Amino acid sequence: MSKGLEDVVASTSAITFIDGVRGRLVYCGYDIADLSEHSNYEEVTYLLWHNRLPQRDELAAFTLELGARRRLPNGVMSSIDSLSLDCDTMDALEMAIASLGIYDEKELSRMETAQSIASKIGTIVAYIHRHKSGLHQLEAKEGTSFASDLLYLLTGKEPDAFSEKLMNVLLVLHADHELNASTFTARVVASTLSDMYSSVTAAVAALKGPLHGGANERVVEMVQQVGSPENVPEFLQKKLASKEKIMGFGHRVYKTLDPRAKILRSYAGRVASTSKEKNDLAILDALADEMIRQKGIYPNVDFYSGFVLQHLQVPTYLFTPLFAVGRTPGWLAHIMEQYSNNRIMRPIAEYTGSRDERYVPIELRGKINA
Amino acid sequence: MSKGLEDVVASTSAITFIDGVRGRLVYCGYDIADLSEHSNYEEVTYLLWHNRLPQRDELAAFTLELGARRRLPNGVMSSIDSLSLDCDTMDALEMAIASLGIYDEKELSRMETAQSIASKIGTIVAYIHRHKSGLHQLEAKEGTSFASDLLYLLTGKEPDAFSEKLMNVLLVLHADHELNASTFTARVVASTLSDMYSSVTAAVAALKGPLHGGANERVVEMVQQVGSPENVPEFLQKKLASKEKIMGFGHRVYKTLDPRAKILRSYAGRVASTSKEKNDLAILDALADEMIRQKGIYPNVDFYSGFVLQHLQVPTYLFTPLFAVGRTPGWLAHIMEQYSNNRIMRPIAEYTGSRDERYVPIELRGKINA
Repeated sequence: MSKGLEDVVASTSAITFIDGVRGRLVYCGYDIADLSEHSNYEEVTYLLWHNRLPQRDELAAFTLELGARRRLPNGVMSSIDSLSLDCDTMDALEMAIASLGIYDEKELSRMETAQSIASKIGTIVAYIHRHKSGLHQLEAKEGTSFASDLLYLLTGKEPDAFSEKLMNVLLVLHADHELNASTFTARVVASTLSDMYSSVTAAVAALKGPLHGGANERVVEMVQQVGSPENVPEFLQKKLASKEKIMGFGHRVYKTLDPRAKILRSYAGRVASTSKEKNDLAILDALADEMIRQKGIYPNVDFYSGFVLQHLQVPTYLFTPLFAVGRTPGWLAHIMEQYSNNRIMRPIAEYTGSRDERYVPIELRGKINA
Repeated sequence: MSKGLEDVVASTSAITFIDGVRGRLVYCGYDIADLSEHSNYEEVTYLLWHNRLPQRDELAAFTLELGARRRLPNGVMSSIDSLSLDCDTMDALEMAIASLGIYDEKELSRMETAQSIASKIGTIVAYIHRHKSGLHQLEAKEGTSFASDLLYLLTGKEPDAFSEKLMNVLLVLHADHELNASTFTARVVASTLSDMYSSVTAAVAALKGPLHGGANERVVEMVQQVGSPENVPEFLQKKLASKEKIMGFGHRVYKTLDPRAKILRSYAGRVASTSKEKNDLAILDALADEMIRQKGIYPNVDFYSGFVLQHLQVPTYLFTPLFAVGRTPGWLAHIMEQYSNNRIMRPIAEYTGSRDERYVPIELRGKINA
């Protein structure tokens, strides 16, 4: 048995190719380096769902369709309105997607449902944020890009072009990553022919786990704790000596630098302007250098993403919900691919217990330790 | 690649052993035939969670603890109160379990959380039913058995001893079934170290799929459609000729009669008293005989469970939610077992797409079909 299903082929897929040895990530044939540089959320979403890039007018139409689906049904808003301000954002997101399954427009096609979920999950995360922060709720705009509207709903301000670009880079880099635990969960649920809302709800439930989402939040905490680049060697020595896990390093699939980390590092370098940012980035770089030198373990996508999110003024409790927003196009692509060539996922367990106990009725049993 | 993970060992487990060749189902060493005859919901739940039968005073204490956890937090009740009367019951259940994760008592241990979820999911299903039916809501009782309280909350009447026994049989037979799709989903979510509410929400999402839950509902519809035992040969001939699936037959794991079907058939024979029931059972038996004779395919647990649920006056839209109630102790046992020996579930896909497409910026692309 391969624990954690490591290297077990659970499905065929034409969506994402990872070359873990060369450090390449490819969506439907296109390298993540090209997509993050030249493309955006809408185009990558189209690519993942249609398995080809759109033509010019297709992209324009798709962008408008997505934009028109951002506003939330009243039922979803009221389910969030009644939450306490200190609720966990991932719990709130999970509940809100389940309630979207109840309150969303009926009779949508699969592709329309995918558009609705992908568009609304951004609005939902912003709505949860504004609810928790006691800010007045804003209405999603129709004609803008997804990245721009997301930043507007989160901050209340129209983003500048570079912030919009940064958000697009984050979204594109997180859009898919083959059979990670949440995407795999979505496929298992879809394999019962359960609906798309339920499959995405389950994916959010999986992403909530600290072994999946949440690492970038803890990288930010770690940088805080280290304080200054000079403290890195001592910090690492202590952590490694007590066999503690260093967050943001290593990946079951990559044996080299995660290409997403490389791209985010380059953007981090471009945006670091305040002295705090420069100090934080120097700490990150020192941590990366030492870990590669001492342990041969490379940074992964979570290592620099928190830094970029902080630059965009995103509070840490939104890091994992925004990971969910970014991963939703991938989840939906995998759900639709699963539907198109389905067999219910039903593995088996290796039984390690006893087989032939004799049942004694409760009347004939003793009291504890009797 | 084994499609649908057939025969892939995804985990070790000491909870349930299925001998698909001999038609045996064993929970922690105890045969389902003994457990369904002599045991009940509380004892089997204890068995699944502690991997041994309780002593007398342990069972008494456990029964009281479960009973004391049945009442719902206000937040869960109001989330159901605001649903439209025609909402899907599984959607409502999924949303309610997610909201239980938000509103349930904090600081519970794992075992207490398991007790809370298992106890409250019965109350939730009854609450959804009474809401949909416009019936006034009842308060869960503390001192009664789970099966008795569930029937009381559903029907508003104290059940007689035999109805309580029948409900216990249904619950015990559905309590666990190794790595079926919903239990597997729960384990994948738990493998990220996500919480127990999220793991059960995801399991409900998977059970919602018609390839997993829902077959017994369609068996009941089929019996209705057939109308009379004499029509069975013609009905089957038509269905088989057009290669339609006959509901309630066959199972990936059992190569012979599902032992749960055998037990339910015997109870069905004992309870059939009205002329409609006798006619329905005769149709079921004729269908089973013909399918075994013509195709060598045996009835599964879903084949007779709808009949027994109907005898208990349970409306068909509650069949899958009650399957969820019954399966919850098993889901929770698997979630706790996953936590106790964890590795994140992260399989891989066999990539079938292209790898080296050249990205052309959108400005250089044409219009559709241009």
